[in-house]
Amino acid sequence: MTVSVLVRPRELCTQRRPVPTPGPGEVLVRITSVGVCGSDTHYFLEGRIGPHVIDSPLVLGHEPAGIIVSLGEGVINRSVGQRVSLEPGIPDPLSAQSLAGCYNLDPGVRFFATPPIDGVFSEYALHPAVFAHPVPDSLSDDAAALLEPLSVALAARQAAKIQIGEKVLVAGAGPIGLLISQVAQLAGATVTLTDVRAERLTAGKRYGVEHTFVTAAAPPVEPEFDVFIDASGAEAAILDGICRLAPRGRCVLVGMGADTIALPVPLIQGRELMITGTFRYANTWPTAIALAASGRVDLDGLVTSVHGLMDVESALTAGSYPGALKAMVHPDVE
Amino acid sequence: MTVSVLVRPRELCTQRRPVPTPGPGEVLVRITSVGVCGSDTHYFLEGRIGPHVIDSPLVLGHEPAGIIVSLGEGVINRSVGQRVSLEPGIPDPLSAQSLAGCYNLDPGVRFFATPPIDGVFSEYALHPAVFAHPVPDSLSDDAAALLEPLSVALAARQAAKIQIGEKVLVAGAGPIGLLISQVAQLAGATVTLTDVRAERLTAGKRYGVEHTFVTAAAPPVEPEFDVFIDASGAEAAILDGICRLAPRGRCVLVGMGADTIALPVPLIQGRELMITGTFRYANTWPTAIALAASGRVDLDGLVTSVHGLMDVESALTAGSYPGALKAMVHPDVE
Amino acid sequence: MTVSVLVRPRELCTQRRPVPTPGPGEVLVRITSVGVCGSDTHYFLEGRIGPHVIDSPLVLGHEPAGIIVSLGEGVINRSVGQRVSLEPGIPDPLSAQSLAGCYNLDPGVRFFATPPIDGVFSEYALHPAVFAHPVPDSLSDDAAALLEPLSVALAARQAAKIQIGEKVLVAGAGPIGLLISQVAQLAGATVTLTDVRAERLTAGKRYGVEHTFVTAAAPPVEPEFDVFIDASGAEAAILDGICRLAPRGRCVLVGMGADTIALPVPLIQGRELMITGTFRYANTWPTAIALAASGRVDLDGLVTSVHGLMDVESALTAGSYPGALKAMVHPDVE
Amino acid sequence: MTVSVLVRPRELCTQRRPVPTPGPGEVLVRITSVGVCGSDTHYFLEGRIGPHVIDSPLVLGHEPAGIIVSLGEGVINRSVGQRVSLEPGIPDPLSAQSLAGCYNLDPGVRFFATPPIDGVFSEYALHPAVFAHPVPDSLSDDAAALLEPLSVALAARQAAKIQIGEKVLVAGAGPIGLLISQVAQLAGATVTLTDVRAERLTAGKRYGVEHTFVTAAAPPVEPEFDVFIDASGAEAAILDGICRLAPRGRCVLVGMGADTIALPVPLIQGRELMITGTFRYANTWPTAIALAASGRVDLDGLVTSVHGLMDVESALTAGSYPGALKAMVHPDVE
Repeated sequence: MTVSVLVRPRELCTQRRPVPTPGPGEVLVRITSVGVCGSDTHYFLEGRIGPHVIDSPLVLGHEPAGIIVSLGEGVINRSVGQRVSLEPGIPDPLSAQSLAGCYNLDPGVRFFATPPIDGVFSEYALHPAVFAHPVPDSLSDDAAALLEPLSVALAARQAAKIQIGEKVLVAGAGPIGLLISQVAQLAGATVTLTDVRAERLTAGKRYGVEHTFVTAAAPPVEPEFDVFIDASGAEAAILDGICRLAPRGRCVLVGMGADTIALPVPLIQGRELMITGTFRYANTWPTAIALAASGRVDLDGLVTSVHGLMDVESALTAGSYPGALKAMVHPDVE
Repeated sequence: MTVSVLVRPRELCTQRRPVPTPGPGEVLVRITSVGVCGSDTHYFLEGRIGPHVIDSPLVLGHEPAGIIVSLGEGVINRSVGQRVSLEPGIPDPLSAQSLAGCYNLDPGVRFFATPPIDGVFSEYALHPAVFAHPVPDSLSDDAAALLEPLSVALAARQAAKIQIGEKVLVAGAGPIGLLISQVAQLAGATVTLTDVRAERLTAGKRYGVEHTFVTAAAPPVEPEFDVFIDASGAEAAILDGICRLAPRGRCVLVGMGADTIALPVPLIQGRELMITGTFRYANTWPTAIALAASGRVDLDGLVTSVHGLMDVESALTAGSYPGALKAMVHPDVE
Repeated sequence: MTVSVLVRPRELCTQRRPVPTPGPGEVLVRITSVGVCGSDTHYFLEGRIGPHVIDSPLVLGHEPAGIIVSLGEGVINRSVGQRVSLEPGIPDPLSAQSLAGCYNLDPGVRFFATPPIDGVFSEYALHPAVFAHPVPDSLSDDAAALLEPLSVALAARQAAKIQIGEKVLVAGAGPIGLLISQVAQLAGATVTLTDVRAERLTAGKRYGVEHTFVTAAAPPVEPEFDVFIDASGAEAAILDGICRLAPRGRCVLVGMGADTIALPVPLIQGRELMITGTFRYANTWPTAIALAASGRVDLDGLVTSVHGLMDVESALTAGSYPGALKAMVHPDVE
Repeated sequence: MTVSVLVRPRELCTQRRPVPTPGPGEVLVRITSVGVCGSDTHYFLEGRIGPHVIDSPLVLGHEPAGIIVSLGEGVINRSVGQRVSLEPGIPDPLSAQSLAGCYNLDPGVRFFATPPIDGVFSEYALHPAVFAHPVPDSLSDDAAALLEPLSVALAARQAAKIQIGEKVLVAGAGPIGLLISQVAQLAGATVTLTDVRAERLTAGKRYGVEHTFVTAAAPPVEPEFDVFIDASGAEAAILDGICRLAPRGRCVLVGMGADTIALPVPLIQGRELMITGTFRYANTWPTAIALAASGRVDLDGLVTSVHGLMDVESALTAGSYPGALKAMVHPDVE
């Protein structure tokens, strides 16, 4: 099979590797679509994300969909030919965190495209059957792949405890911010979306966002929001958002970027604000599938380019083009 | 009646004023004991706390106990001679925040000794009957006064959602930190207490704290705590505490001091930590009374000096003496 | 002014009474529309509801909208000519329950049309300004009146803790059941609606309900629902609904009727189900107004007949006609 | 090895069986102490509990402690000679319920002494290492065994969301009721304990229970409790307890016995009460060990008789003797 390998920062090549054989509890999946995430691009450009350093060649890509082509020993409830979306993290199900329902926080979790675990810019991949979620035919391959960023948005909503009728501020109008905006509206909230670039806000309008504003030109701060979710990772946006929270407001930090932010302690105390962050997701796929399959969330509309395995570099750098939202890799595209 | 008035920073005088008459729903209370809070000292030394500036003479003191001496029109469920602890904030009970159960966050709240509202270093004070909580005879006057800082500790516990068997780290071994330590243990937690000064930790041992350490000489950071409550207000202590939180750990900022802290975003995300702060308290007096009256919380042991109205300056500066915890003002002491 | 008075069970008359004058904090409202509730009908037919017995003539009606015609002393933030929806319960805002945010549970609450408090089948009514909620012009008079049953639905949703993507079963396709169905969908749930009468389920389809079934002809019980909300008050429907709850499922009892139900203890334990009930609502009007004003909830579509003050009896008995949902009383209709 | 087998209702025999060999991830444990539970007695007397029927010979006993004597393949973090308490349920860790943190609700769970799974009235038993929890030497063998009923009490406390200062009513003064009473006090509550037999309440006094009363001679009902936990399984006690709950009170049904109770719907609604039940426990052993090892919970004091494997029948029937609380089986006793 063909795989795209990051040899060193900014240097990709394709390799031929043997198709692997599924072990007990695993399925072999022919990959049909993979979403490109900002973290893939970051690894490509820098060779590392914080403590995670790429020391040896690595396959990137962690938002895959595909078709089951063979079953390992003991796999039930899955069948050859089934279309699946792969939840990319594999926890130890017997760890304390997993048994407590937070398998995303298991320190031993193995995650696609996080060194030294290979990702899925590849024709085939193995995966535990339980994390290969069957999807209905109403979901396209791209949509099945994009259940991963939708899961990020669902985890943000859960951490934010969004209630019907609440006012939610979202910072960052990229794919994650747009998905959070959609999910918050589905939970009954009205959404205001911000970005530093005005042109990125137009997509928000398409998804029913009520108000938008450009962060740098923000109106005077009114503490009117019940919830603020940051999908920008920018300190200025985060601090601006926190200042707009009403008493008992909740802030969820999703975007990566800022190492530290200058948290205003008297404001946190005086309004009894709550600040938290999310790390991936747990138990989100069933809901993600239900929302996407019923058309309540639009995933296909996020796709702005499609690339083959020979063309992963352009996929990884597509985000810098005006209007770009989500690049996809289709391993079967020439 | 005699009152102690802060004329300008570092300058107190006593004045004679007429004893006021209770209006509808109010009681007149002869003050028997008032706790001295760090914020009183701060106003005395600096003439302001953040945006709250003392522009005209102000009576300090906001932790009062006393005896009801007369009742205003329409007061039921209270009687002359009753010993009471005064909850010092008076909200508008019809504000949106009050109706939602957070009357402490009502922006219109009137609070003893917060400019321009006079406090209770005074022989008598008026107060709404509903916030003059009767106390049993098993509570001393000082203990009745110290239900106020105990309420601060109860609010911290509630925000921290402490569960039985959890490990709680408390930073700052002053009166608030010691009360939080007591309350956390009552909720079934084991407590570790820290301070920058070793000698302050001895009082913690007296209250059943399991471990203590001096912040500057802290052992290597292990993410082992379920809850961290800061009662120090020091950025170094806060950041140290946050780093010691286990996944899904909760941090409550109670101490005042730091304007901003350099919050480590990747840590908040990677461990899905929750950071919040408290502003005073709401609905805590019944629990505070029950805990103190049954002897489960020790308040009298915190008192390290007693002062008369002529001697408020020494009360306000007593905190700087070694071993000092809580100074009390007894208006009837010569 | 003209009022409609229930003299004894099944006997109404109209009377002329002086228009009252608003006291401090009150507004005088000219009533434009009042929804008829099942409890009004029950009082009309039986003269009592449980312990609440009508001993002397009583004005019924507790879902009013109107226009402010004069202001009592000290009323701010309200103005003559303003259109308002009246929240019908008046708690003591200083009661323990009110201060804790549950003013609906204050035992001293005074509620329109609950003996001996007169209701609003009347040309004018007095009300505390804070519970006379201004409504935008996008809301019709009927919709402003029906914020009351919408509040019942919002309280049910809150008690049920409905999350996005959950499956919710609603029993009883009357106005309350239909509003709960709308609200549950707005919170991101998919809704199944049941009733004993097939013809009542057609309205559910109009409001986007996904599945419906007739209770008596129910399919075999599958424990598939996350939430069950009863708006029927019928024991058979309640027990059927509880049996359909998945592990950790939540049941909210809203409908009145059954005095006791034979709760299956082993099922509650084996699936760790949660059963609760709601009593009216607290703090719901702002959300109700936002949802109705933005068109996300349809209230006008529930109205199936309109009656004048001379015609209250037909309003109170309209519910027994096929297709009837909500009868309204317009005091200014001849 | 010797095992005690229930051949048919009320007929036990001992058998010799080969000592089993641990498979991957398992440990072999020499059993030192097993608590006798009411369900063991019920199986012995009736041969069934609800749908669980004993069709073939079964080993009873599901509250075991022991010493690890050999390790299966791949077991880390456990060692031969380690003293352990066995958590008796073995879930599928990849089931939806397990991944969500409720592994006790996994329908595929295998549980000691629930047909057809053998229990631990036996000299040796196999168990997954992850559910063989090491205990410190400060815990006796009996205490290590009784971490199981302590876990039942911890699950009840968690479901009841007991807060510091709350008033908790516990019905049923057997081992579970006494453990719930201890745990509720550790969480900061004051406890009232009831039973139909006055003599059983003396043990409660020993554990710090504040008030007790005999259910049949109960004082007039005052709705004063925040929490009611039933450990009796008796409908009369459950209904009495529910009626004593204050507004927003919570009821947790732990005791087995009643098939249905006549739940008073208007009371549930009028006070917005919450009723739930627990099914075993999840993630409780670490807390149980910490509480017992630090002496905060007394387990040894519950033991009222000790029996050998030849004497299991007397162990199973010991509960009917006056003053009996907990019978233990020690397989190494002659």
